Amino acid sequence: MTDKMNHSSNEPEVETTEPLHFLSKVEASAIETELLRDYRFGQQQLIEIWGYACAIAITKAFPLKSISKKQPTVLVVCGPEQNGSVGLVCARHLRIFEYEPTIYYPKRSSHSVHQDFTVQCEKMDIPFLSYLPTEVQLINDAYNLVIDATLGPESDPKDIKEPYSSILVTLKQVKIPIASVDVPLGWDADEADKEGISPEVLISLVAPKKCATNFSGKHFLAGRFLPYDIQKKYELNLPEFPETECLIEL
Amino acid sequence: MTDKMNHSSNEPEVETTEPLHFLSKVEASAIETELLRDYRFGQQQLIEIWGYACAIAITKAFPLKSISKKQPTVLVVCGPEQNGSVGLVCARHLRIFEYEPTIYYPKRSSHSVHQDFTVQCEKMDIPFLSYLPTEVQLINDAYNLVIDATLGPESDPKDIKEPYSSILVTLKQVKIPIASVDVPLGWDADEADKEGISPEVLISLVAPKKCATNFSGKHFLAGRFLPYDIQKKYELNLPEFPETECLIEL
Repeated sequence: MTDKMNHSSNEPEVETTEPLHFLSKVEASAIETELLRDYRFGQQQLIEIWGYACAIAITKAFPLKSISKKQPTVLVVCGPEQNGSVGLVCARHLRIFEYEPTIYYPKRSSHSVHQDFTVQCEKMDIPFLSYLPTEVQLINDAYNLVIDATLGPESDPKDIKEPYSSILVTLKQVKIPIASVDVPLGWDADEADKEGISPEVLISLVAPKKCATNFSGKHFLAGRFLPYDIQKKYELNLPEFPETECLIEL
Repeated sequence: MTDKMNHSSNEPEVETTEPLHFLSKVEASAIETELLRDYRFGQQQLIEIWGYACAIAITKAFPLKSISKKQPTVLVVCGPEQNGSVGLVCARHLRIFEYEPTIYYPKRSSHSVHQDFTVQCEKMDIPFLSYLPTEVQLINDAYNLVIDATLGPESDPKDIKEPYSSILVTLKQVKIPIASVDVPLGWDADEADKEGISPEVLISLVAPKKCATNFSGKHFLAGRFLPYDIQKKYELNLPEFPETECLIEL
């Protein structure tokens, strides 16, 4: 046996004395690199963890019983990179939780990890829209909410290209609530942007980004798996997650 | 838009009229092949889903507050294949949930997916035992329970080789409770075996195997992600999972 068999202390998960740290783009990218390279987390694994936690967040913010329309429809708008795949996983779990997600995924990634998540949704008969209606009332009427899993912290809001610039115009006009994953469409991860959309719900992954500092809506931190050493190194000062919850409302 | 935009019906998740189906080895293998090949689930993704659900099962069967020893120690015995990696993921999540897992993983897989899960545990400072004490009292004294993530449905109990035959002898003598993942060590997936261990808790993955038909301990079905078409095709008749729970006690 190793001499580690008898543990001498139970390392605390949380340090509550310091305020929550809001990550810059650079820090967010560094943490992800470290998780993938040093801790050998897989991209597929992280996307599954995050997408599942996003689905749980949606069930808390919009419980089935509170849904006003007859059908619990949800429109999930997915971007071309990792954030989009988180949206795909979220849609798949929402389907399992008896919601009725519909996916709009205009630019599909050529990476096999993203393609696999797409097939999983297709094979579960989750409908994919071939285009997003420009008539906003159609969206308001058809869905209870929109999940914005469009662009992540890596994107530059000053350089949003089609089809995302048109999606931004549309989503700025919808009247149903929007829940954004990590960074709302049109925002810069380092600062909130009034040119972007105005989500009612924000689901931060790993830790909230700087842009979320003054976010006044419902704000979840999703995905409870971060190694303690990473939490310490980046002084994240994450709050204590209740019991076995995979997310926490900030 | 597709004509699927307006859903006409909400497909029920559950059919409660028929009894739960207990899978044969052949069926269990066929379902897994279908998930990987047709639904394009990744092995890494499935292991993460199952390991997480196993950790949640342990927190339900052995809540931190009910743990009798001063430290919430758990011994996780991991086999060489997929079942062992489910144990590694379970240990990692238990650590996040403030338990103190220790891993015994005598034969490490050479596959990168399994190696990655190992590194994740090592980097989170979860101790690995270099050998299992043959003096059973040491195990009874050091740990609150043992998680048996040793051999899966593919193994033949009549052909258990070292080191697992010795582990079997040891685990048959321990007095602390054992929680087995999918198929208890020494059992055949198609029938319970008195020559095997006697777990207090069984955590079935996908669906229970035939060997669990008359299991009298605490029995969980873990991992709520199975596409409806698979549930139908194999007539699984899974029970209804409560709300957003990732497992259910059978």
